[in-house]
Amino acid sequence: MHAKIAVLPGDGIGPEVTTEAVALLDVVAHLYNHQFEFETAPIGGNAIDSTGTPLPEMTLTLAKQSDGVLLGAVGGPRWDKEPAHRRPETGLLALRKGLDVFANLRPIQVFSNLVDASPLKREIVDGVDMLIVRELTGGLYFGRPRGRTEGPDGIDVVDTLQYSEREIRRILKLGFEIAEKRRRSLTSVDKANVLESSRVWREVAEAMAQDYPKVKLSHQLVDSAAMQIVRDPKRFDVVVTENLFGDILSDEAAVITGSIGLLPSASLGADGPGIYEPIHGSAPDIAGQGVANPLATMLSAAMLLRHSLGLEQEAQVVEDGVRRVLEEGARTPDLTGSSIGKADVIGTEEMAKRVREAV
Amino acid sequence: MHAKIAVLPGDGIGPEVTTEAVALLDVVAHLYNHQFEFETAPIGGNAIDSTGTPLPEMTLTLAKQSDGVLLGAVGGPRWDKEPAHRRPETGLLALRKGLDVFANLRPIQVFSNLVDASPLKREIVDGVDMLIVRELTGGLYFGRPRGRTEGPDGIDVVDTLQYSEREIRRILKLGFEIAEKRRRSLTSVDKANVLESSRVWREVAEAMAQDYPKVKLSHQLVDSAAMQIVRDPKRFDVVVTENLFGDILSDEAAVITGSIGLLPSASLGADGPGIYEPIHGSAPDIAGQGVANPLATMLSAAMLLRHSLGLEQEAQVVEDGVRRVLEEGARTPDLTGSSIGKADVIGTEEMAKRVREAV
Ligand SMILES: CC(C)[C@H](C(=O)O)[C@@H](O)C(=O)O
Ligand SMILES: CC(C)[C@H](C(=O)O)[C@@H](O)C(=O)O
Repeated sequence: MHAKIAVLPGDGIGPEVTTEAVALLDVVAHLYNHQFEFETAPIGGNAIDSTGTPLPEMTLTLAKQSDGVLLGAVGGPRWDKEPAHRRPETGLLALRKGLDVFANLRPIQVFSNLVDASPLKREIVDGVDMLIVRELTGGLYFGRPRGRTEGPDGIDVVDTLQYSEREIRRILKLGFEIAEKRRRSLTSVDKANVLESSRVWREVAEAMAQDYPKVKLSHQLVDSAAMQIVRDPKRFDVVVTENLFGDILSDEAAVITGSIGLLPSASLGADGPGIYEPIHGSAPDIAGQGVANPLATMLSAAMLLRHSLGLEQEAQVVEDGVRRVLEEGARTPDLTGSSIGKADVIGTEEMAKRVREAV
Repeated sequence: MHAKIAVLPGDGIGPEVTTEAVALLDVVAHLYNHQFEFETAPIGGNAIDSTGTPLPEMTLTLAKQSDGVLLGAVGGPRWDKEPAHRRPETGLLALRKGLDVFANLRPIQVFSNLVDASPLKREIVDGVDMLIVRELTGGLYFGRPRGRTEGPDGIDVVDTLQYSEREIRRILKLGFEIAEKRRRSLTSVDKANVLESSRVWREVAEAMAQDYPKVKLSHQLVDSAAMQIVRDPKRFDVVVTENLFGDILSDEAAVITGSIGLLPSASLGADGPGIYEPIHGSAPDIAGQGVANPLATMLSAAMLLRHSLGLEQEAQVVEDGVRRVLEEGARTPDLTGSSIGKADVIGTEEMAKRVREAV
């Protein structure tokens, strides 16, 4: 097949890790006789520096015309004090909105030979296999009005948590559909004892449940979910929730695996290209040192193969390759907590090379 | 001294645990020659059942006229489908607002002989000693507009995250002041890369930091904080954050201790009575069985002695008593994960009796 892939390296370690994911996709293309055409464009802090805006028009156009977007990471302390329109994250949010990728899929898996890297006890975390489905283009991230007003008594500021029934329905639908193909348990997380938006969310979920008789739907309050993710993460199969709750809970869930450097994500819309990015950030402290873990980005590339290009076999080959390399003991520095002594500690390029060879 | 204490048992295990805390305060009064006058009033689900509203007028009046409010817990599945004005939690929120208790203090401590009850590895959790200062009367919990509108395309729903500079300033002030008396590290948690309200929050914090030169102020994004609480909780001293972030993070932080049944909380205003309650909920599944852990409520009573009555010595005597009883191996069923085999498993009344004796 022929596919156009937009590559947006971003800031910090973004360029290092996307380079390796592209090299991997090249190998896959070669092996399976595909033609992948890569085009790179700026986003985030570097885009602000070079063009004055975190999402240049041409980057969005390129993304829209692609079959899938591979993204590194955006942000860094250099731009932290800037106003909203000159912040790297604003570029990422605009890209999500521009492509209407309303669903962020975050698989949380524990690689059994890395269990010891988890801050949790082995018996609690071994075997965790959950998928968080986070709403990505609504809620507090985009609601209006937002902003400050200055009065005689000082500033007054608002953000708006806004959802339409349509937005709630489409993300829940995806949650139900994915749950049907997994262990058939769907946990919808809200704060229905306080928020109006959560009450509507819960009602819509309840009504939809009738259409998915095989799926067991349960509701959990976000504070209680934050507890259960630490106390008994194995109880979760598919979790569906609104944007900000998903932001917090998916990062919390990621950290229990002990290997954030391994976790990919996919952001999908109804049609059009998806965005694929590692969940770790731009890690400016280790950027340029050749020690960043490229695996999360490589696994994100696997998700791109699966979800945007429909290449399931190729996706699995990549995932198997990563698993094999980890089984053989290869570790980037972020993963060494797990196997002190017997770790085979290598850098970004060497790790990526081994995965390519395994593939 | 003479003090009036309003007792609001609430739902589920609330009555069982408040009864024991009251009995404990009676012992303290006797020992130290105080006169504590207790008056009980309904709140939450039982108040809905008996009066039609979750916070009867007379309950609020009683609370306002008291020196401190001892609260059990509210809520239960029976009232889960009710509209907002007939929900137990609405009563609690109205009480918080009515007493203007804008600061919720949640000490997170690990009792060293209960470390093994934690889902986290011993080396990560042993020694954790943090205090979360959560804003309690603003943000998404109370902002307007809130509610749904029905249009031709279905429901549209909003909640409003609203803060005034004054509200932000008073909670941060408390955070700085408490940090000065502890290890002098204050972590302000926000989502400043996305939310306008967080940007104002961060600016106000930055500006105030100059007045507290001894305190090291740092900022953390809420998703990142959710990670660090699991990965390295010992790094935190005082954490200050807005209402909903505080709700989620304080429950997450509570669960890492492995003993939610031990954690108290205090909700304080500028003056007037504070509200003291255990952080565990109403636990309807074990209500009435005599197995609920009374210690969190007893420790909440200690906070009442300290913060509302200024009886520091009496507060410490209670805290020491609880510590001693735990050291001697006494455990309610919720704590038994920690010491299987050698646990001395007892019920609510027996546990409470031992603490009274220790005091
Ligand atoms: C960078 C930031 C805006 C973003 C978010 O909050 O969505 C990030 O935390 C994420 O989860 O992808
Ligand atoms: C019962 C509920 C309204 C409450 C809250 O969200 O504040 C509870 O979770 C708490 O933390 O005290």
